[in-house]
Amino acid sequence: MTLPRIAVDAMGGDEGVRVMIEGAALARRRHERFKFLLVGDQPAIEQALQRHPNLRAASEILHSDDVISGEDKPSQALRRAKTTSMGMAIHAVKSGDAGAAVSAGNTGALMAISKLALRTMPGIDRPALAALLPTLGDNDVVMLDLGANTDCDTRNLVQFAVMGAAYSRVVTNRTSPRVRLLNIGTEEIKGTDLLRDAATILKSAAEELSIDFDGFTEADKVCQGDVDVVVTDGFSGNIALKAVEGTARFVGDLLRRSFSSSLRSKIGFLISRPATELLKHHLDPNNHNGAAFLGLNGLVVKSHGSANAVGVANAVAVTARLIEENVTERITADLARIGEDSLRFRNEAAGGAA
Amino acid sequence: MTLPRIAVDAMGGDEGVRVMIEGAALARRRHERFKFLLVGDQPAIEQALQRHPNLRAASEILHSDDVISGEDKPSQALRRAKTTSMGMAIHAVKSGDAGAAVSAGNTGALMAISKLALRTMPGIDRPALAALLPTLGDNDVVMLDLGANTDCDTRNLVQFAVMGAAYSRVVTNRTSPRVRLLNIGTEEIKGTDLLRDAATILKSAAEELSIDFDGFTEADKVCQGDVDVVVTDGFSGNIALKAVEGTARFVGDLLRRSFSSSLRSKIGFLISRPATELLKHHLDPNNHNGAAFLGLNGLVVKSHGSANAVGVANAVAVTARLIEENVTERITADLARIGEDSLRFRNEAAGGAA
Repeated sequence: MTLPRIAVDAMGGDEGVRVMIEGAALARRRHERFKFLLVGDQPAIEQALQRHPNLRAASEILHSDDVISGEDKPSQALRRAKTTSMGMAIHAVKSGDAGAAVSAGNTGALMAISKLALRTMPGIDRPALAALLPTLGDNDVVMLDLGANTDCDTRNLVQFAVMGAAYSRVVTNRTSPRVRLLNIGTEEIKGTDLLRDAATILKSAAEELSIDFDGFTEADKVCQGDVDVVVTDGFSGNIALKAVEGTARFVGDLLRRSFSSSLRSKIGFLISRPATELLKHHLDPNNHNGAAFLGLNGLVVKSHGSANAVGVANAVAVTARLIEENVTERITADLARIGEDSLRFRNEAAGGAA
Repeated sequence: MTLPRIAVDAMGGDEGVRVMIEGAALARRRHERFKFLLVGDQPAIEQALQRHPNLRAASEILHSDDVISGEDKPSQALRRAKTTSMGMAIHAVKSGDAGAAVSAGNTGALMAISKLALRTMPGIDRPALAALLPTLGDNDVVMLDLGANTDCDTRNLVQFAVMGAAYSRVVTNRTSPRVRLLNIGTEEIKGTDLLRDAATILKSAAEELSIDFDGFTEADKVCQGDVDVVVTDGFSGNIALKAVEGTARFVGDLLRRSFSSSLRSKIGFLISRPATELLKHHLDPNNHNGAAFLGLNGLVVKSHGSANAVGVANAVAVTARLIEENVTERITADLARIGEDSLRFRNEAAGGAA
C-alpha cells in the first residue's frame, strides 16, 4: 500500500533542521515506503539533504522562512499559522497534501494551530496528547493527556478514555483495553470529585465503550503491564511523565557514576556491556519519542524538543503506524457508534463538567 | 542532651508489629540516645521485643487493642482516636508524653487525627506532608505537599513554601533555600492561575521569607541538585512522588533482568557488585523513607506502608533529627516573624485563595 506522506516541520526542536532531517532520513532507511513533505527554510533543508540522497528522492520541500519559537505564545503562533513551518505542515494535513504532521516545536503553539486548522472530531471537546510508555508486560501503555489541557472536566476525561482505548487497540490487539484513571489511591473515595465522577461514568458505560474499566491506578503502577490506557488531566499527566523521564535520567547518571567509580567496576561494566546497553536503551527517552494529538480531524505528532535523530526517527515511525492503522478514522467510528448525545447525557447525570 | 522519646504506632504498616519493632530496634542500635513509647497490642509487642533486649530496655509499652485499617475512612478513624494505636501515639505527642509520633498506617487517618489532636500552627491553614528526595547535588531536596491536601489554594502553597524552607535550612544549612513551585513548564505563563498567583506572592515576599525564589521547576528537574524546596499541591506531589518511585522500581527490575540475561552478564554483575550495590541503595525507597507532617503543633512522621525494618529505622532517624533540630519550633518562629496578617494580606492582594 502507498502510505500518505508525512509533513515534517523541519525547523522545530532545540537543534533545528539538521536533527529533523537526519531523523527523517533514518526513518526512511528503516521503512522504504515513507514519503515526506519537508517544511521550512529551503536552502537549509537542501543543505541538510546533501548527505541523505535517499531521503531527498522521497521528499518534496515546502519553503517557509518563518519559525515559531519556544517563547511564542499560542495566540502569537495562531496569527502566523499560514506562514510558519509548523503552521504550514499542519495545513498540509488539512488540505490532504499530507497524511500527518510531525513537529518538535513549541507544544502550546502546535496544539493551538492544530486545533484551529483541523478542528476536533464530532463528540470531542478537546484533543489530548497521548504517548506510549514501556511496561514490564508485553505491550506499551497509552497515557493521555500529557499536557495539552491544563484544566479538564469530567467530559474531557471520558473522551480521553475513548481515544486512548482506540490507540491501545492498535498497539495491543485487545478488543477491550484495560482503562484506568490516574489517581493518588485506588480506593473509590480517593482523589477529586472530577475523578470520582469520571469513574462513575466510565464504569456504567464500559460495555458500550468496549473497555475493561476498573477504577483508578497510581503513578507507580502505570508501567507494571496490568493496564493498557491511563487517563489523566494534562497537568497531572505532564507532571507524571516528566517525573518518569527525570528519574530515568537520574538513574542513568547514577549508573554511569557507579560504574566509573573504580577500576573493578569499569571491568565489570565492560563485561556486562550487553546488559547495560539494554538498560540504556530502555532509559533513553529517544526510544519512546513521539506523542500524538488525538481527537482532531487529522493527525499531528509531537517530537520532544531535545530529541536526537533516533528520537525523531521514532516519532516518524509512530506517525506512520498511526496513519497505517487508521487510528483517526477508528476513533471517529468509535465515537459515532457510542453516540455523542449518550456521553453528554451521562456526564450531566453524574453532575460532572466541573 | 536527652532526646524526647518517640511514640511508635506498632500496629500500622502492611507487615505489622514485627517490622515496626525490628525497625525501631535497628534505629536504637544506630543511635543509643533514642527512647521509645511503643503503642499497640501489648502481648504482640512483648513477643516481638524478645529478640531485641536493647530496645526493650529503652521502651515503654502503651497498650491498645484497636487498630486503624487501610480501609478506614478519616471520619471513622477520628471516632476511634482515643482507643487506636495510631490515635494514642498522636495523643502522646499532644500530652507531651512523647516528642513525636511515627506511624506506617493509613495516611488519611493519620492526617485527620493529627490535625484534630495537635491543631495547625498559628498562620497555617493546613499541614503538609514533606519528604526528602535524593539529588545529584550535595543535599537532599525537600518536597511538599506529597498527598495531605488534594485541593490547595494560593495561601496553602505559600505556607508550604515557608514550612519547606524551614525544613530545608536544617538539611542544607542554607540561610535562604532555593524554593520553586512545581509546574508543567518554567515560563511565567505556564500552568494554572493558582500557581501563577502563588509565584507572584512568593516573588514579592522572598526577602521577608528568607528564601531564594525563582519561579517554577518541572518534575524532571526536581533531583538535579539546583533546588532545595519544591512546593506543590498534594495531588500533583503524590503523582510525582509515585511516578519517581515506580520508575526507580521499574529500572531496578530491568537491571535485574538485564544482568541475569546471560552468563557473561552475570559474571560482569559479580565483578561490578560494589557499583550496583550503590545503585541499589539509591533506588531502594526504604533508604528515603519518612515523610513529616509539617505545620502542626507537634511532630508526626509517616513511614511507608510497605517499608521494611531498614525503612522504619530511617523514618525513626528522620523523626529524631526533626526533634533535635527543633523544626516545629523553627517553623513557628518563622511564621511569627513574617506575620500571619502579612501573608493573608498579600494573598488577597494577588486575588488568590481560588
